[in-house]
This record gives sequence, C-alpha cells and structure tokens, in this order.
Amino acid sequence: MVHKTVIKARYAETDQMGVIHHSVYPIWFEEARTQFIKESGITYGQFERDGVMMPVTDLTVKYIQPAHFEDEVTVETRITRVSYSRIFFSYRVMLGDKVLTTGTTSHGFVSSDTFKPVNIKKTFPQFFEQVSSFVEE
Amino acid sequence: MVHKTVIKARYAETDQMGVIHHSVYPIWFEEARTQFIKESGITYGQFERDGVMMPVTDLTVKYIQPAHFEDEVTVETRITRVSYSRIFFSYRVMLGDKVLTTGTTSHGFVSSDTFKPVNIKKTFPQFFEQVSSFVEE
Amino acid sequence: MVHKTVIKARYAETDQMGVIHHSVYPIWFEEARTQFIKESGITYGQFERDGVMMPVTDLTVKYIQPAHFEDEVTVETRITRVSYSRIFFSYRVMLGDKVLTTGTTSHGFVSSDTFKPVNIKKTFPQFFEQVSSFVEE
Amino acid sequence: MVHKTVIKARYAETDQMGVIHHSVYPIWFEEARTQFIKESGITYGQFERDGVMMPVTDLTVKYIQPAHFEDEVTVETRITRVSYSRIFFSYRVMLGDKVLTTGTTSHGFVSSDTFKPVNIKKTFPQFFEQVSSFVEE
Repeated sequence: MVHKTVIKARYAETDQMGVIHHSVYPIWFEEARTQFIKESGITYGQFERDGVMMPVTDLTVKYIQPAHFEDEVTVETRITRVSYSRIFFSYRVMLGDKVLTTGTTSHGFVSSDTFKPVNIKKTFPQFFEQVSSFVEE
Repeated sequence: MVHKTVIKARYAETDQMGVIHHSVYPIWFEEARTQFIKESGITYGQFERDGVMMPVTDLTVKYIQPAHFEDEVTVETRITRVSYSRIFFSYRVMLGDKVLTTGTTSHGFVSSDTFKPVNIKKTFPQFFEQVSSFVEE
Repeated sequence: MVHKTVIKARYAETDQMGVIHHSVYPIWFEEARTQFIKESGITYGQFERDGVMMPVTDLTVKYIQPAHFEDEVTVETRITRVSYSRIFFSYRVMLGDKVLTTGTTSHGFVSSDTFKPVNIKKTFPQFFEQVSSFVEE
Repeated sequence: MVHKTVIKARYAETDQMGVIHHSVYPIWFEEARTQFIKESGITYGQFERDGVMMPVTDLTVKYIQPAHFEDEVTVETRITRVSYSRIFFSYRVMLGDKVLTTGTTSHGFVSSDTFKPVNIKKTFPQFFEQVSSFVEE
C-alpha cells in the first residue's frame, strides 16, 4: 500500500539558495509517516500515551531536484518491512510527476520509560497485524 | 547586570530573502536566557528535573536590521523584573555596535506536573535571590 | 474579513515540555498570512519574483494555552491596517473554541534589490485595493 | 584530518520524547562542515558570493544514542573524497567518548545561476588543493 500526504512548502523552510533546506525533508517524512500510521487505527500520540515510542534509528535521503516555497508536494510513503521490534519506511517526494527526493527511515519500538525494546506483536497485536498488511516491497 | 551570549548564524536559519528568518530570534533569545540562568547557579535542565518549568507567556520582537549567514552576533540579555511567580527578560541582538533586533519575553513559573503556578521564592529561595540581584531596569 | 487556515501540529514542533515550542507560532502566522495574501489574487512568491518583499518589522505573541502534537488548530487572520508602505496583521490560534495564542505582525514593503521602501499603492494598485478591502478593525 | 566543532544542544531542538529531534543532526553536520571549509581559507559565504553552491545530494544518519538539552557535543568531521565536481563528508557526534550519531553527506559543486555543475578544480584551484589535502579515508 502506498500512502499519500500532501504538504505545502513553507517560507520558513526555504534557505538562501532559494530552495527548501535539506533538513526539512526528514520532517516531511515524519509528517507523512504519522498520517500513515493513523490509518492503522492508532495515532502516534496514543502510542506514546501507552508508553511506546518509535525513535528513528536510520535515515537516508537522496536529493534529486529542489522543492520551492509554495510547492504542494505529495509524499508517497511505503512500509517496506515490519518485525516485532522494528519498522522500515520508504518515501518519495513528488511534485506533479517529478521525483524531488527519495528516502528511507528505520525505527525501533521502545518503551518510553526504559528506552528498552518492546515486542509490538505482543503489546499491540492489532496494530502489528494492520501494519503488516500495509507492507509493500 | 547584562549577560552576553555569542551566537553564530547558521545556514539552515537563512531564508530565501538571504537573511536570517524572523522565527529564529526567539530561539536565540532562549539560548541567551538559558546561559544567563546558568549564572544563577542552577541550569534550566535541573530546574525541569525538579519539576519546575518556565514557559513563555509573552514575546515581542522588533526587527531593525537583518542578520546574515555566518554573522557572529552578541545577544545582550537583561532580567527586567522578577516576582515569586513570574520573570521578565529583555534582549538586544548586536552585530558589532549595530543593533539588529530587540525583544522581550515574560514567563510564569509552573509545575511540570500540573502546569499550575509555583512560588519560586519558596521552592528555590537561593535561585530567587540570585536572580533578583541580576535585575536591571 | 477573517481568513482561516487549518494547521496540523507536527511532532518536530514539540519540545521536551510536551507542547508545541513557542518559536513555532510565528511560522504558523506566516503560513496563515501567505494563504490570506493569496486571496488578494497575488501569491507571495509572485510578489518576490516582481522584486517586492514584505519583511516582518514587529512581532508580538501572547501564549494562553499550549498546543500539542496532532492538534488541528485554526489560525484566524485579520489585516488590521494597510498603507502604501506598511501592512499589519493580527492572529488568533484556535483549538475548537479555545484560544491558544494571539499575536500581531507588522511588515514593510521593500525592494528585494535595495531593501528600500516600495510604494505598493503605485506598484501593485490592484493588490493594494484588494488588500484594503480586507481590512478589519 | 579530523575537524572538531563543539555544539550546545538547544531547548528548541528537543522534542516530546525529551531528546534532540532527529532532524536536527543534519543542521549540526552543516554547521560542522561550514567550520571545516573555513579552514581551507574560504568561507562558505564567499563561495556563494562567487556564484558557487554546494547543495547536499545524499544524506545518511545513524542514530545510536540520543543527545539531550544542554549537552555539549563534539562533531568530528572528515572529508572522505573530493573530485572536480563533488565532495563527500563523514561525521561523528560525540558526547565525551560516547558516539551518539554518525552520518555522511555528499555534495555537488554547482553554479548559483544555472544550478549546473562547476569544475571546482579550475574555478577555485587553491580551495581544491587545500581541501584535497584534508581528505582522510
């Protein structure tokens, strides 16, 4: 399944090159990921209130063409793999049919108290099943 | 007492006007304030660990001249008033002897659990006394 | 006229107090202002391409209640005054019928080459008229 | 050669997990890279004024341990490769002797007018030589 999130590029996100600063894309990825997770029937906020966090452990970004102020980009998000302890996303930032940026993130499921790994399959079986059904390779 | 903090303007802080984006100054003020508070013998981090927070309740900024990438600015910070429940700061961002920006913030002391006001004079008497001695009108 | 822009609070915009960081509101104001200006029939981007910029000269923010991650807030924006050389906005950030934050910005119209004032009434008469009709006191 | 830049983690850079948000590290990398380039006898600002930009084309980050507010981290930066048209950096963010984060960026040299590749060996021979002498594998 491919999830799509539309994001409007903000003025504050530009830099003096006249383009969206490269550090903004991880934030757009996060926004897209949050929306995607919501479709599993659980919000990221609920997740945290139940004591589970999903910190980023790896990030890659490939910058192909720049985005500009007022661009309405679509972030296409895929879950490429999920296990009891980890989840992997891939992203494509599109402007119309142009690919501006691609990227990936991986995440561990950890307890918000101890920062220790949490077995998501046991603690959130419904979430795990739902998210597993979203996986696309 | 005037406290001085040197800050180097970052590339990511520029916008497509070629200057430091106006939303960056409240962050520089915060950085300067954090350094200033440290001189009272307590760090802002300790403060929070002891269950007290100091959220901003009012902010004003006056933009006189823009800062640019790689500028090394000096933020001059003053505490203009402190009471058992509130504290007021004023700021001047200087580039050499040019005033780029001025501003003010006010803050309440609140409990991090309840977000209710905390009497700082009672709970942190030493901090209160130290900070009171810094006040400059 | 009151313009309304809906903004979803991002995870990256939170801080360790568990609320949206106070430096984020000027960015939300800017986003709301950009949308509002668009209704005058001119985008802020076009504006800049025609050599006119609208830098912020004054900013005030009053923080009443915090916003949280995943909140969908509505920024209500008013133009409170416009002259040949300056424009004034006021903002209210609402969560349902709760006022979270209020604020104001003022701006000068300046040339992007010289940073000198531009007479907007002469250079963009249609924009000036449209925006004047939006003014609400 | 290993270049070292000390950076103090800002409050505004924290998120509601209580740690520095993952999107901040690319900004710290950029700050470190800017300082490193300065040692070649040219500032990044001069570079841009001479019509050359160095946009990021690839970014990777590996998050090992979180940084916290008020941490004074050291970013260790290496240039791992440079050619007439591209440059590659690697980074390690250290807190004392703990590795918090590692990462890499690659960049193209392009004209700020045309966004086309620039032969840096020809246009900035001294910079090219200096930077080449910094390469460490």
